[in-house]
Amino acid sequence: MSCDFLALAQPGVQKLSPYVPGKPVDELARELDLDPAGIVKLASNENPLGPSPKALAAIRGELAELTRYPDGNGFELKRRLAARYGVQAAQVTLGNGSNDVLDLVARAYLGPGQNAVFSQYAFAVYPIATQAVGAQGRVVPAKDFGHDLQAMLAAIDGETRVVFVANPNNPTGTWFGPQALSDFLARVPEDVLVVLDEAYIEYAQGDELPDGLDYLARFPNLLVSRTFSKAYGLAALRVGYAISSAQVADVLNRVRQPFNVNSLALAAACAALEDDEYLARSRRANDAGMVQLEEGLRGLGLSWIPSRGNFIAVDFARDTAALNQALLREGVIVRPVAGYGMPHHLRVSIGTAEENARFLAALAKVLDA
Amino acid sequence: MSCDFLALAQPGVQKLSPYVPGKPVDELARELDLDPAGIVKLASNENPLGPSPKALAAIRGELAELTRYPDGNGFELKRRLAARYGVQAAQVTLGNGSNDVLDLVARAYLGPGQNAVFSQYAFAVYPIATQAVGAQGRVVPAKDFGHDLQAMLAAIDGETRVVFVANPNNPTGTWFGPQALSDFLARVPEDVLVVLDEAYIEYAQGDELPDGLDYLARFPNLLVSRTFSKAYGLAALRVGYAISSAQVADVLNRVRQPFNVNSLALAAACAALEDDEYLARSRRANDAGMVQLEEGLRGLGLSWIPSRGNFIAVDFARDTAALNQALLREGVIVRPVAGYGMPHHLRVSIGTAEENARFLAALAKVLDA
Repeated sequence: MSCDFLALAQPGVQKLSPYVPGKPVDELARELDLDPAGIVKLASNENPLGPSPKALAAIRGELAELTRYPDGNGFELKRRLAARYGVQAAQVTLGNGSNDVLDLVARAYLGPGQNAVFSQYAFAVYPIATQAVGAQGRVVPAKDFGHDLQAMLAAIDGETRVVFVANPNNPTGTWFGPQALSDFLARVPEDVLVVLDEAYIEYAQGDELPDGLDYLARFPNLLVSRTFSKAYGLAALRVGYAISSAQVADVLNRVRQPFNVNSLALAAACAALEDDEYLARSRRANDAGMVQLEEGLRGLGLSWIPSRGNFIAVDFARDTAALNQALLREGVIVRPVAGYGMPHHLRVSIGTAEENARFLAALAKVLDA
Repeated sequence: MSCDFLALAQPGVQKLSPYVPGKPVDELARELDLDPAGIVKLASNENPLGPSPKALAAIRGELAELTRYPDGNGFELKRRLAARYGVQAAQVTLGNGSNDVLDLVARAYLGPGQNAVFSQYAFAVYPIATQAVGAQGRVVPAKDFGHDLQAMLAAIDGETRVVFVANPNNPTGTWFGPQALSDFLARVPEDVLVVLDEAYIEYAQGDELPDGLDYLARFPNLLVSRTFSKAYGLAALRVGYAISSAQVADVLNRVRQPFNVNSLALAAACAALEDDEYLARSRRANDAGMVQLEEGLRGLGLSWIPSRGNFIAVDFARDTAALNQALLREGVIVRPVAGYGMPHHLRVSIGTAEENARFLAALAKVLDA
């Protein structure tokens, strides 16, 4: 007979419930015996434009080197990020997606007896990463589905080591302005690391949202995390990054697995970073898709949480489990957010005009049924 | 003034020295102003054959999906690994390289007050992963540079949660046979997880080494870790895996980042796993290169540690720092192993016949200087 290797795991790990990702197209096709080509997936806030041609070219140029380890220091990508954002390369930490960056922060700065503060309806990886290292997550009730920054400040105590804030926030799409961020940062104790998650910032820039990087010089306890998975269209490849003080970056780089970012991701991210045309096109398509979805939802008499991301959390004012199943049967995958404590909402990523129309038509059909 | 964010890090993290990878070709080219095309890198135990055409085709077939997240469950790769090795898919944990698997084990099963046992001259990631979670590494003196399995058993105490063994071992190339493994497993307490690192096993199979997977049914506390980075030639992409009891796999999958393995890696690994011809060619080329290097080293009057990996640790019977620098100036990158407590050795990966000849010629030249 064998031992109980669940009971032997670290206490925080034993209680972990894994992250539930958006349902992959192939999985739905298998489950409901549907044609994958007819399925519309608006569940994971992915870029609907398809890949940047420059990123594809960069990947093709790297394929001959597949047997070689990646550059563990990510020299070229860090150099380009530093140049673009006016920071030092030593301030950059590369991650296997920004999920990895969030995880590195938890591993470096959180442990048993310590806590991290984050908002109700915030990204699921904050509580998961916190719990995995045996620290306590302090969940601060949201205000109108957005961060209540005053209440988050009040929740910080002597054992708080990290505060996670997202702008805009996923899965709600809510945001805060420059003054709110500045006031918040000025009042967070200087020994508490503020992780400002800007995974969706490229969709929102110039749109009454602050650029977190502007605050780094004044607040050495600020870390800004970003990703190439959304507006840059590289979710498949896994590459995110943090920009922080050089000291925090040094600590995170000690914990980081030496080859955490693969070679094709490094090459593609370098190319994507220079592809301003693709980024602008992503933004324009998202703005147009947002208008299209809002008009369609209005036409159906529905309301939603105003969003600055590439997604909208639609409010159905009743439990959405059956509705979600009905949409799946129509070949439309959106994201249930009951796991976020939002059982009345479904989160819909903004797709192409055609995908958005497919979603709206399917929704009209199942609401009418 | 700002806080000391090194002092605020977790105690184990503060003391971490990051892994030192093999020097990348581009880095040497920058440092010594050499032509990258003329540099031979035999420093990271990479497959010298170049990528498997089937893996390349699989990657190209996946490029249109770059904006989509990977299948977080790695359904298809786990299915194929399970079928090939006669296990259940639920026994498989996929990692961002086998480094990730080793890290997951440490995060799940090690913490402050607990310890992991491993050998002197073992892979650097064992102590790094152990220290990162604040556990103690118990280093057992090697015997003839190989694992002293009896002494490792004796080192296990009530706080030991994990034992790391590698077969063959990196950086020494040493190995042990089926009887030694079987005796060892029979005597490890059943609540101690044995991590059998078989990163190089494809180079050694049938060669008086046991196949760790044969022991899984008898020993539920056994985990076998393997990689696509060596004989399968996919180091750039980062994909490794563990096969263990379903319970241990469930625990590791809770800690695992949901999209830790990227889409191109999943596709390429599926293809590489079926490419028996490439694997056989890798093995043949390695066997031939081993003979070539051994003959060359013998001709230079040098000795080495007999190896079953795709590398040889050459014994120069004196400090090798200056010798390594001289080789770098010749455009030949090998791996110093002073960090492993082996200042008299240099580890040389087996390259193509031409690369091996370049190395031997450069070595003859610098030894003669």
